[in-house]
Amino acid sequence: MRDTLARLEHTIAQRSNAAPDSSYVASLFAKGRGKIAQKVGEEATETIIAALSGDADHLTAEAADLLFHLMILLAEGGVAFDDVLAELDRREGVSGLVEKAARDNSGE
Amino acid sequence: MRDTLARLEHTIAQRSNAAPDSSYVASLFAKGRGKIAQKVGEEATETIIAALSGDADHLTAEAADLLFHLMILLAEGGVAFDDVLAELDRREGVSGLVEKAARDNSGE
Amino acid sequence: MRDTLARLEHTIAQRSNAAPDSSYVASLFAKGRGKIAQKVGEEATETIIAALSGDADHLTAEAADLLFHLMILLAEGGVAFDDVLAELDRREGVSGLVEKAARDNSGE
Amino acid sequence: MRDTLARLEHTIAQRSNAAPDSSYVASLFAKGRGKIAQKVGEEATETIIAALSGDADHLTAEAADLLFHLMILLAEGGVAFDDVLAELDRREGVSGLVEKAARDNSGE
Repeated sequence: MRDTLARLEHTIAQRSNAAPDSSYVASLFAKGRGKIAQKVGEEATETIIAALSGDADHLTAEAADLLFHLMILLAEGGVAFDDVLAELDRREGVSGLVEKAARDNSGE
Repeated sequence: MRDTLARLEHTIAQRSNAAPDSSYVASLFAKGRGKIAQKVGEEATETIIAALSGDADHLTAEAADLLFHLMILLAEGGVAFDDVLAELDRREGVSGLVEKAARDNSGE
Repeated sequence: MRDTLARLEHTIAQRSNAAPDSSYVASLFAKGRGKIAQKVGEEATETIIAALSGDADHLTAEAADLLFHLMILLAEGGVAFDDVLAELDRREGVSGLVEKAARDNSGE
Repeated sequence: MRDTLARLEHTIAQRSNAAPDSSYVASLFAKGRGKIAQKVGEEATETIIAALSGDADHLTAEAADLLFHLMILLAEGGVAFDDVLAELDRREGVSGLVEKAARDNSGE
């Protein structure tokens, strides 16, 4: 698990400043944050539709697209993927997911 | 990286069949796929808004929420997170992300 | 207000069964509900991004796109736009939007 | 059709500056653009899920929620609903929806 995501994050970082026509990632960085955010929204929608269709292969492919574009959005925003994982660790460590539920339901 | 996500996936699997009031994850599984998909959509929207606000801490927190709910959606759909990673590996290995871009742009 | 939306609904209905290559609407109907739903998700994301950018002209254009694709989704699902308006009337008439808020906040 | 939406827009405008606890609309305005945008994203997700479920009554209700929150987002952004309708008229009048399709497909 570590290898895939660490390697993907490294690849994205390398391409973030490359010529826009040199790769898909470079072209997204050139178009800017709004375009990358839009792609995350699109891929989330496709992931939802795939999940509701009940086709596991389709869901796998769309989740990969969503994760890929989320990592680009994080890179563009200066957030290391390890920081996201640390946040997940912190929640489970400090309070447990049960408590997270309590927090989520009490607010809003 | 491996540890956090593998442990989270394990925790989700354990709670998927627990009593609905025993944890947040169990309550989502009890509500079903539509509700889990809705949460993924909500968290994706919040991630987009956080990214556009330019607040890295906010983006980190929302990305963690999105990843967490995506893993629940995958578990509910019978998809192992390793399958998603394998799909990402396959794309990079077989064709490279550059070719992925070509594929994405030629279709649709 | 009546004329634009009524005429648009009529146009969509006319094109719903036309040859897929005869119009954009016909092509969406041919691709099916999943594709139309995906477009609604995309346009909603773009509307959100436009709103956050603070550009009123951009927001106007994206809201038009969202409304247009929402009307296609409704037509595909056999829902008349008047039924949606009747639902809005009913809420305001029976209970008021204040009460709607109470309902929304008590449930989840 | 005209009456419902015009009246709703008028109601939203009236409540936009009211005390946050006086109505749901007032509370959303008080929370600001990000929160309103988030609600549009949530309601769009619910509309998509309702459409895919094939339940016309559910789709009607969620489309009403989406339209309602879209009108709040427009009001907060200083866009009159008539401007959105004028944009829809303009597209159909000047170029036709067929040409819109051509434009959408040539660009991205």
